[in-house]
Amino acid sequence: MSQKFIAKSRRLRSTIYSSRIEQQGLTSYTVYNHMLLPAGFSDSLEQTYYHLKKYVQIWDVAAERQIQISGKDASKLIQLMTPRNMTNTKAGKCYYCPIIDDNGGIINDPVILKFNNDKWWVSIADSDLLLYAKGLAIGKKFEVEIFEPNVNIMAVQGPKSFDLMNKVFGSKILELKFYNFDYFQFADNKYLIARSGWSKQGGFEIYVENDEAGLALYDEFFRIGDEFNIKPGCPHLIERIESGLISYNNDIDIGDNPFECGFDRFVDLDSDIDFLGKERLKEIKKEGISKKLMGVTISANEIQITGSLNLFYQNKLIGELRSAVYSPTFKKVIGMAMINKPFFTIGQNFEINLGDKGDKSIHSGTVCELPFI
Amino acid sequence: MSQKFIAKSRRLRSTIYSSRIEQQGLTSYTVYNHMLLPAGFSDSLEQTYYHLKKYVQIWDVAAERQIQISGKDASKLIQLMTPRNMTNTKAGKCYYCPIIDDNGGIINDPVILKFNNDKWWVSIADSDLLLYAKGLAIGKKFEVEIFEPNVNIMAVQGPKSFDLMNKVFGSKILELKFYNFDYFQFADNKYLIARSGWSKQGGFEIYVENDEAGLALYDEFFRIGDEFNIKPGCPHLIERIESGLISYNNDIDIGDNPFECGFDRFVDLDSDIDFLGKERLKEIKKEGISKKLMGVTISANEIQITGSLNLFYQNKLIGELRSAVYSPTFKKVIGMAMINKPFFTIGQNFEINLGDKGDKSIHSGTVCELPFI
Repeated sequence: MSQKFIAKSRRLRSTIYSSRIEQQGLTSYTVYNHMLLPAGFSDSLEQTYYHLKKYVQIWDVAAERQIQISGKDASKLIQLMTPRNMTNTKAGKCYYCPIIDDNGGIINDPVILKFNNDKWWVSIADSDLLLYAKGLAIGKKFEVEIFEPNVNIMAVQGPKSFDLMNKVFGSKILELKFYNFDYFQFADNKYLIARSGWSKQGGFEIYVENDEAGLALYDEFFRIGDEFNIKPGCPHLIERIESGLISYNNDIDIGDNPFECGFDRFVDLDSDIDFLGKERLKEIKKEGISKKLMGVTISANEIQITGSLNLFYQNKLIGELRSAVYSPTFKKVIGMAMINKPFFTIGQNFEINLGDKGDKSIHSGTVCELPFI
Repeated sequence: MSQKFIAKSRRLRSTIYSSRIEQQGLTSYTVYNHMLLPAGFSDSLEQTYYHLKKYVQIWDVAAERQIQISGKDASKLIQLMTPRNMTNTKAGKCYYCPIIDDNGGIINDPVILKFNNDKWWVSIADSDLLLYAKGLAIGKKFEVEIFEPNVNIMAVQGPKSFDLMNKVFGSKILELKFYNFDYFQFADNKYLIARSGWSKQGGFEIYVENDEAGLALYDEFFRIGDEFNIKPGCPHLIERIESGLISYNNDIDIGDNPFECGFDRFVDLDSDIDFLGKERLKEIKKEGISKKLMGVTISANEIQITGSLNLFYQNKLIGELRSAVYSPTFKKVIGMAMINKPFFTIGQNFEINLGDKGDKSIHSGTVCELPFI
């Protein structure tokens, strides 16, 4: 399959870091929240994989846009959108929350930052949550303000991220707990930093609110980072699938409910909290789910996913593969698939056609647990 | 500026036509409504421009997704979202409608197809209108169903589109009036066809509801189209700017109101219809607008827009360029710009820096009317 170029325009927003990463070997982009998200560099996917697992990378993830919801009814609106119980949530903490519609379909799976009961940032996956929140707030006559602030996240990921951040921000940064955030000083600026990120190699996300301060920090990282073998990077297909990190609209979408996605621990049907889709989720829980997101391994040396691929068992369609990549660790293709009932059991075998343009190339695979590592 | 590749995945949905156009010389994509939208071919931009103005092109515009709004309160919801008076709208007709929020900010600028009072298709620009409509419907407790049907538009554009369509569908297709739609037969299938499209070269949009039927029609066009010099194509940057066709999130966005975008004729503040932002628009009309979308010409031989570019007059910021391209017809760069008050007058001069990466390359320009042709 030959590669295609991306046609840039104002509609696919560049980020404050774009010109820098393009000078640092960026080769490909994806588009996420109407913004360019780096997807590949001149180093191979395998090289950047081993690098991420050993050293430290700076990621331009400005495309993880923030939706600020503030005002008197902010907490009510946040709770209305998610089945996760937000009652005892605390300021300075991050919460992974499925966002669902009144039918239980997943609309987004953001990390939500709580500043206080009247101010939240929703760090969104790739769908216009702002429009959903606005529609609900208008319809419900909530007293809230909803907008996208100018926040451009830079992620610092990899095991050496702690040494790098320590050198720039001092040892206090090492005390920041997982999924907590706070403000830290570098030079003349304060930065909102969370212990989080879309890899399981450890690290931080820096919510840059001032463009100049963000670029100054970016440049500082690369000025002093040689001793940690610092490189630019981006969310990594191999690492994120091995780690079981879900990508909205790749692995799950509006046709799936939280139970099908393994989000049971983020659904509270027992308390009296008020959220959309609650009654439907109660029904689904009673009926049982009809499909489930699972891991799969496939005996193949390469794969490129551009859409769902059907999985068959004894010529019966049993599910669809949604993300996949060759893993150098497992020496086979690994992926995430939505598997139909009753086939979503560990060890279930299947066949898949990986042939391009109507060619046949049948490979065998097996259903497994997530995450892989 | 070196070109970057697009990283494909399930999240950037391929269309039913993707594999065909990739075999027909497609070189670049943009992303639109989470879907791949062709943006360039091996023929140059200038070649495809002249071709579009003389012959006929088939465009894969499946990324113009449909949002179906149906049910008892469907008309009420449609009216709530747009300042255009939908009271006397007719079945079988298409309506260009700005969609706004309660602050008058533009959220989308779709063409809306009316089937009847209880069923509409909203043919959306690049934002998740489905989520806005869902939020409003839930909040207002409207009895509606809102979903994205599997519709994949193929556009037939260019002056020879009439001959081509006549040959396939018979002369009845020539009686279809501008912005009307109806069903037409080819082989064993019926196709919903509108006299519309995102060029001013004439043509049709075929709302394909059956994948196989769509591909059969696509292949038929290319089987018989040689006599009309048929080629694959896509929305054309030069032609659409010359024609003044607005691109949401390129030329206008949520920070702009309908009056600033020249949509006065689509705003009814005088009748008693109920739509969001009505009071705010009344205020704006009274106060007068503070900026306006205008055409501009720039003395330059090339340009590539990846974001807004500032316009200056006597060192004062007077607006921003949002889309632009070199026009072989005008022998200069033409574009669309949001110009601040009081500079949005025809003939206003400005300067713009087209230098890359901090280099200075100052060019002069002039504000003009839209469209150019």
